[in-house]
Formats: sequence, C-alpha cells, structure tokens
Amino acid sequence: MPPKTLSHSDLTKCRATEVRAAIRRGAYAGHTAGLAAGKLQCNLAILPERFALDFLRFCQRNPKPCPLVGVGDSGDPKLPTLGHDIDIRTDVSKYRVFRDGALRDEVTDISDIWADDLVTVALGCSFTFENALLRANIPVRHIETGRNVPMYRSAIDLVPAGPFGGQMVVTMRPIPAAQVAQARAISSRFPQAHGSPIAAGDPADIGIANLAQPDWGDAVEIHPGEVPVYWACGVTPQNVLLDARLPLCITHSPGHMLIADVAEDAETTILTQPET
Amino acid sequence: MPPKTLSHSDLTKCRATEVRAAIRRGAYAGHTAGLAAGKLQCNLAILPERFALDFLRFCQRNPKPCPLVGVGDSGDPKLPTLGHDIDIRTDVSKYRVFRDGALRDEVTDISDIWADDLVTVALGCSFTFENALLRANIPVRHIETGRNVPMYRSAIDLVPAGPFGGQMVVTMRPIPAAQVAQARAISSRFPQAHGSPIAAGDPADIGIANLAQPDWGDAVEIHPGEVPVYWACGVTPQNVLLDARLPLCITHSPGHMLIADVAEDAETTILTQPET
Repeated sequence: MPPKTLSHSDLTKCRATEVRAAIRRGAYAGHTAGLAAGKLQCNLAILPERFALDFLRFCQRNPKPCPLVGVGDSGDPKLPTLGHDIDIRTDVSKYRVFRDGALRDEVTDISDIWADDLVTVALGCSFTFENALLRANIPVRHIETGRNVPMYRSAIDLVPAGPFGGQMVVTMRPIPAAQVAQARAISSRFPQAHGSPIAAGDPADIGIANLAQPDWGDAVEIHPGEVPVYWACGVTPQNVLLDARLPLCITHSPGHMLIADVAEDAETTILTQPET
Repeated sequence: MPPKTLSHSDLTKCRATEVRAAIRRGAYAGHTAGLAAGKLQCNLAILPERFALDFLRFCQRNPKPCPLVGVGDSGDPKLPTLGHDIDIRTDVSKYRVFRDGALRDEVTDISDIWADDLVTVALGCSFTFENALLRANIPVRHIETGRNVPMYRSAIDLVPAGPFGGQMVVTMRPIPAAQVAQARAISSRFPQAHGSPIAAGDPADIGIANLAQPDWGDAVEIHPGEVPVYWACGVTPQNVLLDARLPLCITHSPGHMLIADVAEDAETTILTQPET
C-alpha cells in the first residue's frame, strides 16, 4: 500500500525530523517554504568526488552565492553535522538529475543512482534571511504576493576554481528606501544564507537589462519609494555546475530544499548534539 | 649583498603589502603580532592535494578551531583572494616543515620544496578578536604581560574527516566576570577568527587538569573576580595534521602568521579589488 499523501498544511507544525520522515517514506513531494520554522534549509549539490575539491574551493571563494553549510564523506549519504538521521538519497522532496550539463530527470528518490564516489554539498538558502526580514516587518514582495523570487543573471564575475566559474545569479527584493539599511544589517548576520546585499538601486550597475524580465522566477512590482535590493542567489552554484557539464550532478528541485536540524540563527551550521 | 635586516618596530607603520615585501626579500623573519593593524592574519597549512578534500571537509565540520579563509589552487603558490601579490613560498616570515608527522626543519622560504601537488589552506587566527577585545577595554592578560597565550589540549572531540580528527586545542583568557558576556558578544562577530568562546569556568568541564600547566604557550595569572574563558585554537589543525602523519606538511611557525590584505572585520575574507 503506498503511504498516505500529506499536504503542505499537514506538515506546517511538524519538526524537521518529522518532515524529513514524511518525505523519506514518500508521503510528501511538495515545496518546503514555511516548513520546520526556525531550521536551516539548504540548496543541494551532489557530484563525483573527482570534482569535489575544486567545487569546495569554488564555494570558499564565492561565499555569498555559495555559503557552504555541510559536506558529506565520499560515497556516504549521511550528513550528521546537519541532521543525525539525514539520508540524502531520500530526504529531499524532489531532485533534479543532470548528465553532461543537461537535465535528464526529476525524481523523489535517488537511491538507485547513488554511487560510492558521490559527494554531497549543502549550501545555505535565502529562506533564512527572508524569515528574519519578515520578523522585522520588512516587506518581502514575492512572499506577500505568493510568487517565486525574481532571479537574474548579473555581470558580476565569480572567482573561478577548476572548471567552475561564470557570473553571479542574484535575487531582487524591493525594499522601502527607509528600511534598506536595516535590511542590510539583518541579512549581514546570516553569512550561512547569502549575507548582506550585493548591490542596490540601478539594475544596469550589475548588468541587468530589465527587472520586469527575470531569468528565473516571477517579476514583482516595485512600489514608489522602494529600492530594488540584490542578494547573491543559490541558483548560482547550480548554473555553474551545469556550465561545467559534469557527467553526473544531482541538485534539489527549486523550492524543494533539504531541511536541516540546525537552527537558522545558530553560530555555526554544525550539530554537535541531536536536536529534539 | 644580503638585504638590510628590519626590526618589528621598523614595520609597525607599514601596510600589509610592505610587510610581506620585507619578508619576501629576506629582511624580516620575526613574529607578526601587531603588524599591519586591521588586516586579517592567518594560520597556514600546506599539504599534498590527495589529502586536501578531506582536510577541507575537516575544516568545514570544525569551523571554530579551523575557520577557512583561503584555499589555493593545486600547485599554485598564489592566494589572490587574500592578497593580490601573495606568494606563499616566500611571504611568511618562518615556516615549519613536517615529514611523516615529525618536525624536520624551520625555514624562512619554501621555494625549494614547493611542488605541483601542494595545496595551501589559510585559517583565521585569534589576533583578530583579541584586537576587538582590547578596543572594548577588555583585558587580554597574555598581551598585558608580554607572554604567549596559554593553550591546552581539551577533551572536546572534533568532527572527523578522513585521516583527520582528535580533540580540540583551546586557548584561555581570564576575563572579569562582569565582562564575559561582552567578550562573548564581541568574539561571536568574528567567525573567521574562532568566533565565540567554547566554554567558560571550570577547566575540568572540558578535560583540562591544571590551568597552571598549559600544553603550549605560557601560564597566565587569573585575578580575583575573573573567569577563565576558553576559545577554539588554531593549533588544533596543526596538531590534527601531525597526528595524520602526512608525508609532507608545511605550517607557519607559531606567531609568524600570513598577513592578508583583507580587513579583519570584512563580511567575507574574499578580496574582489586590490587593496591600497
């Protein structure tokens, strides 16, 4: 008998371990925004070991788009520093499988393609600082309007490492001019989640032609008195991995993040004791 | 003709690039405490590429003793994200060369042993938060008394990675009880430099038998009303590297740090523009 299917609202009061358990047994395949409040959610990149050293160097050199929060042992699907029971083959609600730089499949379980040479890399995500902005009554337009955050290819060069490089992808959030400094201060406290903005104001300054035409996600309205503010985006490492045309690379599907047991405001992203 | 030898006081007003230039041409081989004020100083570990992935995983899993601030390309002695002109073969005033886990040499230049498979890893150091404590009028006893900070082997287990693991080395600074919370808050702002304390109070809680007998450095007096406060120490990765008995490993000599062009209070440790 297949497991009972749960909805997003069934899970909103559940702890991180319970959400992961539901995903693991195949009962939930939806997005993770708003689930396990207060816990770190992560972008995911799984790649063959022979590319892992260069990819870790790339992340270290580009900490704002690629904030490294967890790295697995080669061939080991566990990530004990992010959650004692995490099995990365089953605990993400939807995965994308890329081969030679092309999307080949979207699946809810990667047990059948897991291999002894695969290394899991987890990177912070913007949910963390968005939650903090909302707590400070700073509007987050795409959340208010039920859309996906607008994302743009910028002209900002990344620091390369091995086959990895290119330009940064950024997100844009319109912020009332009087609250831009506060938004900057709040997000700067979350280096594990892209940190402070990369830029604010004229999109042309960072090579964006038209804010009404995002490269991914949905355009959002900028109200009078608001300033477009740009943050480094977790789509950056996904793009960079695709451009490197690795023979195999697995990521989460957009919005379907890995939920960790680490508190999103913890000083480090390393669990030392099981969370309850 | 050998270069003119400079003293520590000759260099106290110099910029980071000038201090490195003096070291590079063989004019200075002393310690770097107090030089290039405001710039990040770094612990150094150079190791063969085949151990680098595990070592980076180890640092990611132990961010308080091993705050990763820079990683070089394999075989490349440059570290452009820390300083545009850095050549790691010549720009540290004194190096230690270890083979099979034993100290074999202490030298001022490693050009003759540099090899195509070596990877440089730079880690933050406690000078950064000590400077911030002093600016806030929090006493730092070993600096007041002209000694080396006392360092102790603790019983705190590290998160292992490959051949790397063991227990954390900690430093101890006696802090007036009324200033412990402030010292914690200040140092927590420097994750690139060991962050907030690991523990405070009874040394037995973290497996230290006798504060009067440090394993490295000098014992310091604890005055009435002061609490011993413990921070993760950059000797931890050196110890872990030695215990792993790598065929070759090069570190800085204690107190002879790599001086970066990165500001010690920068949001990230990655230079994007040349510093002036």
